[in-house]
Amino acid sequence: MIVLNDLLEYKNYKIYQDTDMFCFSLDSILLANFVTINKNIKNIMDIGCGNAPIPLVLTTKTNASITGVEIQKDVYNLAVNSVKYNKCDDQIKIINDDINNLYKKYESDVFDVITCNPPYFKVNEKTKQNISEHKKIARHELTLNLEDICKISRKLLKNNGVLALVHRPDRMIEIFDIMRKNNIEPKRIQFIYPKYNTDCNLILVEGTKNGKSGVKILEPLIVHDEDGNYTEDVKRLFRG
Amino acid sequence: MIVLNDLLEYKNYKIYQDTDMFCFSLDSILLANFVTINKNIKNIMDIGCGNAPIPLVLTTKTNASITGVEIQKDVYNLAVNSVKYNKCDDQIKIINDDINNLYKKYESDVFDVITCNPPYFKVNEKTKQNISEHKKIARHELTLNLEDICKISRKLLKNNGVLALVHRPDRMIEIFDIMRKNNIEPKRIQFIYPKYNTDCNLILVEGTKNGKSGVKILEPLIVHDEDGNYTEDVKRLFRG
Repeated sequence: MIVLNDLLEYKNYKIYQDTDMFCFSLDSILLANFVTINKNIKNIMDIGCGNAPIPLVLTTKTNASITGVEIQKDVYNLAVNSVKYNKCDDQIKIINDDINNLYKKYESDVFDVITCNPPYFKVNEKTKQNISEHKKIARHELTLNLEDICKISRKLLKNNGVLALVHRPDRMIEIFDIMRKNNIEPKRIQFIYPKYNTDCNLILVEGTKNGKSGVKILEPLIVHDEDGNYTEDVKRLFRG
Repeated sequence: MIVLNDLLEYKNYKIYQDTDMFCFSLDSILLANFVTINKNIKNIMDIGCGNAPIPLVLTTKTNASITGVEIQKDVYNLAVNSVKYNKCDDQIKIINDDINNLYKKYESDVFDVITCNPPYFKVNEKTKQNISEHKKIARHELTLNLEDICKISRKLLKNNGVLALVHRPDRMIEIFDIMRKNNIEPKRIQFIYPKYNTDCNLILVEGTKNGKSGVKILEPLIVHDEDGNYTEDVKRLFRG
């Protein structure tokens, strides 16, 4: 069922979701707020943009041109309609293609920033067969994996451009490895904890193309308070 | 000036310090409480033990035999006297030697756990010339560096034995790299934040010899509350 949900209340931004298929998650909001955006940034790409929550949130932070790429036609349609609804079509362009094909057509060194909320899970025998193809592609590395993302970023990012990812902490070491093999040096990291006394369940990582070694770990972000409500730090992301 | 300070009040443990030379820090207490200790552990080594805070705290958690190695004669003497004062000489042996020479004499695969609160800083032109030799060796990688620690651990640890380090976050990526080059897979990590809204300033890392990839990031540890006092989580470390 396609519904129109709130994305950013203070902006009156809304987003189309298909509850059977693809809903945006807090992960995307966290990533869009984490990535370093400054006024020199001209071109941003969001790889695997889903229904476009990251491009939409980024319009509140920059006037840069934003390209979202989404492989799935139905999800692409949600993105296009969401962009239109919020009157962001001048700033955001959504492309329905496989980034693994598309990036070969781009020239090198064209983007200042690449963001990606990728599929978190490796494809293996545990890949659930009983979920929809839409969810499988969004969650499992069937059409896009970490190697792809870093290889594409290596080509498309300008020198000192940044790749920002949200991912699972258990794959952190592998993420650093693959980034560095592609000349993207991890520089800023933030750990997300569901509650104060629980293990980290999400990481935000930003790497710089041809950056020097040396990493900064930002303050922790705790998502829920003891009563299970969003903390003030998270509420602030939706309040602007 | 040599003074006798409290180490663990609830145990009435005290530790000799030379205020001009070497004082133990919270870092060591955090590491001793972080490292995985279970009842199967027989042999523990603490590399660069200083005045022995880590061996002393570990006696409250295990009956394993603990070897502390300290290169500096004066600091070694503080360690020996601290061990004696707390009547831990049956469990802790302190050796005055350079671990880089010593480890060649050990057989392979003999330790279950190796801990190390190493010098944090690389030796470079910024290495302060105006601090004492004692402090220089404790803080800068003059006689012991990350490569040494991981190479030694690779030899001395049993299969699946663990190396636990405390270090600075800016060197995290390098730490993971050097551990993995020595077949020590990072498995448990905890980030320490001086206050809730500040960047991380210390990391605790535990790697397993010949371990599988996949890492767990524990709950954040915040050291000070808003008034600058230790948080309950830190006070608990001293209370037992």
